[in-house]
Amino acid sequence: MVIEDPLEVRKACEAARARGLGVGFVPTMGALHAGHLALTREAKKRAKFVVCSIFVNPTQFGPNEDLARYPRDLEGDVRKLEDVDVVFAPAPEAMYVPGERTRVRVDELTAHLCGPHRPGHFEGVTTVVAKLFSIVGPSVAVFGKKDFQQLAVIRRMTKDLFFPVEIVGHPIVREPDGLAMSSRNAYLSPEERQRALGLSRGLAEAARAFEKGERRAGVLRDLALASIEPIATSIDYVSVADVDAMTPLPDDATAPERVLLAVACRVGGTRLIDNVVLGEDPPPVRLD
Amino acid sequence: MVIEDPLEVRKACEAARARGLGVGFVPTMGALHAGHLALTREAKKRAKFVVCSIFVNPTQFGPNEDLARYPRDLEGDVRKLEDVDVVFAPAPEAMYVPGERTRVRVDELTAHLCGPHRPGHFEGVTTVVAKLFSIVGPSVAVFGKKDFQQLAVIRRMTKDLFFPVEIVGHPIVREPDGLAMSSRNAYLSPEERQRALGLSRGLAEAARAFEKGERRAGVLRDLALASIEPIATSIDYVSVADVDAMTPLPDDATAPERVLLAVACRVGGTRLIDNVVLGEDPPPVRLD
Repeated sequence: MVIEDPLEVRKACEAARARGLGVGFVPTMGALHAGHLALTREAKKRAKFVVCSIFVNPTQFGPNEDLARYPRDLEGDVRKLEDVDVVFAPAPEAMYVPGERTRVRVDELTAHLCGPHRPGHFEGVTTVVAKLFSIVGPSVAVFGKKDFQQLAVIRRMTKDLFFPVEIVGHPIVREPDGLAMSSRNAYLSPEERQRALGLSRGLAEAARAFEKGERRAGVLRDLALASIEPIATSIDYVSVADVDAMTPLPDDATAPERVLLAVACRVGGTRLIDNVVLGEDPPPVRLD
Repeated sequence: MVIEDPLEVRKACEAARARGLGVGFVPTMGALHAGHLALTREAKKRAKFVVCSIFVNPTQFGPNEDLARYPRDLEGDVRKLEDVDVVFAPAPEAMYVPGERTRVRVDELTAHLCGPHRPGHFEGVTTVVAKLFSIVGPSVAVFGKKDFQQLAVIRRMTKDLFFPVEIVGHPIVREPDGLAMSSRNAYLSPEERQRALGLSRGLAEAARAFEKGERRAGVLRDLALASIEPIATSIDYVSVADVDAMTPLPDDATAPERVLLAVACRVGGTRLIDNVVLGEDPPPVRLD
């Protein structure tokens, strides 16, 4: 069932709750791939009634970003969401009504990594997720770990604003060759698609060293950089960072037993991100 | 019943809803007076189960404001709230847990009147009200119109964040001599208490002129100022303002048939506010 109207979605969720069903929620921007479908499957495991939203949220795009050309395929998306109870596909004016002026932001957690490179991005994310949580009223919501910082920011917001929803992070889903799935991969030319493997390869090189005992933040970072620099058109960051605070460790720091290694770079005109939690995640790809 | 723990309040409200009761909500900072009690009475008319929160919200006070000396009397307040089902009196650390970083703000509506004079104030208000709405889940919430701009800002936030709650504004409750009731009136010395009548008198002078057909914004403003300037230690603003947008009208503008006249000034060290919606409210006080 595809519903556009927020208030109708609220009603459908209220009816589900009245029937004793838990409501699971997966917010997406559409252009769905196997990564998204893993999230809806996870939601379905945890709740009997699952809502998936498809909304290309304008406020999380910067003025020079790809809002206008972001891939959109509602029909195709709906076909992929067979086991979902409600596809919530609102118009922009329904989520941002004329005269709307409210923004939700999370400080500090957004000050590093993607934050400085995408001013306003996380504020757009937290604003729309707060709206969506209010509309859907989920008991559980599933987010992908590819957007690791986003997940941390949403956990923070959820706790701080007392949304009664459990936030579940789902492992990154990768292509067989290691590339993290992303709707933006569709932008890549065949040659760029090949180069993009440098991200997961770089993370894997660092993960292998970490497994063997390497804890010098700078060395781990350089190992990732060695695979990423040659293929990147430009690099926003390659950072070893505190897994909770999202603060990058200086190169001369010793990494703790669980630490985030995250990258954002451009391959051609396409901005790609990837990450691995060293000490927790399996290596992103097997190295020969 | 006094409850400190937000999650226990949530449970009590969930139980009430499960019994088919609507939940009414009145957020206060305590130091309750007859104005507050009019709000809880109004809530009780509109909902069977009423929660009144008593929380001196630190984030809505500026660094040079009266947070530390704000009047507190939980025991006395609880006695006054006999007909309320739950008094929610959380500790500051329960509403702002360690590590919290989330803020909710409303732009534009907060750019004029009290906004520039109290930087961060409205952000503190919207942040705590969003938290409280999430915890209590009211179907109706009642706010006093003395804080007219606050009411407008909360209406905006409620709509924008899809909180499923009806916002009710309650008329200003005044002392017999016209002074708008306020917890901060307790700060006034007897001499200041007398001077403070200049606020409601000034609004009434303008209201009388408005009734007689005066529509020049500058003249209405000057009529209010004539009573306020002599008694004010300092004036933050006396403004004729758009009743929806909260933007002050220039002196040479013609006031519409429904327009806000609002004042904020200090009498001694005490900041007082008052307002009247010309064309809608009765005059604040009878003029001899």
